[in-house]
Amino acid sequence: MKPVTLIPIHGIPIIQPGDDLVKIIIGRLRAAHLSLTSGDILVLTQKIVSKAEGAIVDLDTCFPSAEALKLARSCGKDARLVELILQESKKVLRQRADVLITEHRRGWVCANAGIDFSNVPGNCVSLLPRNPDRTARDIRKRIRHLVRVDVAVLIIDSHGRAFRKGAIGVAVGCAGIAVLKDMRGRKDLFHYRLRSTEIALADELASAASLLMGQANEGIPAVVIRGLTYRKSAQPAKDLIRPEAIDLFR
Amino acid sequence: MKPVTLIPIHGIPIIQPGDDLVKIIIGRLRAAHLSLTSGDILVLTQKIVSKAEGAIVDLDTCFPSAEALKLARSCGKDARLVELILQESKKVLRQRADVLITEHRRGWVCANAGIDFSNVPGNCVSLLPRNPDRTARDIRKRIRHLVRVDVAVLIIDSHGRAFRKGAIGVAVGCAGIAVLKDMRGRKDLFHYRLRSTEIALADELASAASLLMGQANEGIPAVVIRGLTYRKSAQPAKDLIRPEAIDLFR
Repeated sequence: MKPVTLIPIHGIPIIQPGDDLVKIIIGRLRAAHLSLTSGDILVLTQKIVSKAEGAIVDLDTCFPSAEALKLARSCGKDARLVELILQESKKVLRQRADVLITEHRRGWVCANAGIDFSNVPGNCVSLLPRNPDRTARDIRKRIRHLVRVDVAVLIIDSHGRAFRKGAIGVAVGCAGIAVLKDMRGRKDLFHYRLRSTEIALADELASAASLLMGQANEGIPAVVIRGLTYRKSAQPAKDLIRPEAIDLFR
Repeated sequence: MKPVTLIPIHGIPIIQPGDDLVKIIIGRLRAAHLSLTSGDILVLTQKIVSKAEGAIVDLDTCFPSAEALKLARSCGKDARLVELILQESKKVLRQRADVLITEHRRGWVCANAGIDFSNVPGNCVSLLPRNPDRTARDIRKRIRHLVRVDVAVLIIDSHGRAFRKGAIGVAVGCAGIAVLKDMRGRKDLFHYRLRSTEIALADELASAASLLMGQANEGIPAVVIRGLTYRKSAQPAKDLIRPEAIDLFR
């Protein structure tokens, strides 16, 4: 095992709908005398992906339903925002103070369906990307097309946890890497066969990249992770979601 | 923001009760022509800490209670192991197949009270360290004493999650670093004040280090994280545990 380096990509401008993220990232790396190399893992915040895809909604264009109006009164949120949260969710699981914990249409259990105000202008909010696994695959292909290197791509968000305080980076879209590392059947130092350990590799990578990204005005929405050996795979990040039937608390 | 490097410490021998972990780690770093420098974050698996502290139990010395015998029948586990799990826990929260999700006496919600067979010899199991926040403080002091540098120390374990598959590294003991990074009140790129974001910095660091450690026979129980700017603090890792009153699913 060699050292692993987390490299921040500086100088990425404020992303607009339709921007070519890959061209921008390659340009910013070049400006820093860096380039992507095969085996790198490129990690992007969901926020710049959402912006590039235009998954930004002006609250003034939202008209809350009766259900949203009622829920908004009980949690003290803007009813237009609650309407969006409901539209993005399969169901509301819990309400704590002004936070709605929902199951997003794509299966993530997170606060406010992943909708937030940060780093979007004016009265707008950003939704989670429509299909981040597909976007990760598209970005990976575009990198191969533009600079002929084979990298893994992760799109990440910050989620809270049921039993621990604070949010951490988790992978919501992946391409080119096995998101779960199955240790079952491998031997330990005493030749004992491990029976149950499965590591959420993509989530650990998401948390590692998140260390450099911040959530405020750091302006680091992309990080390259270099030096880690991993198994290539077409496994999507949605494989990290525990189906309701086997989750631990529903 | 500069690159951050995750440096594996190779060649750490199988740890025995009473071993001086700090001396061993400094020795292994020296052998690789490396040394700790101020600002480094030293991350250790709970496993080597438990071994050094002698938190290893031979199952042949365990006598299961009636409660343990009953629970062992329903989950198909060794009753002596169930006895240990009960002794280490405040309560059993869930039982799924052969896994008992419990609240550990120190507050962690994890599988089998953190007890496992891996990387311990024979018929023995390792318990979680008795007081990993205290041990982290002791290790930090000992490093200052031996090599006169000021580092942060993390003791980590791998925990499963309620809604996501796979385990990830989390911090169970910390010293010298603010475990939660409070972003509330900070401004984003559009000068919007963030209202709710608190990042579990120590858990993100734990996951980052865990990328190099593995759970099987990798033999990398210690990693140095270098290059990250962080706030020094005496905040313990137990501050990462969500009190039951504000947790989301009890």
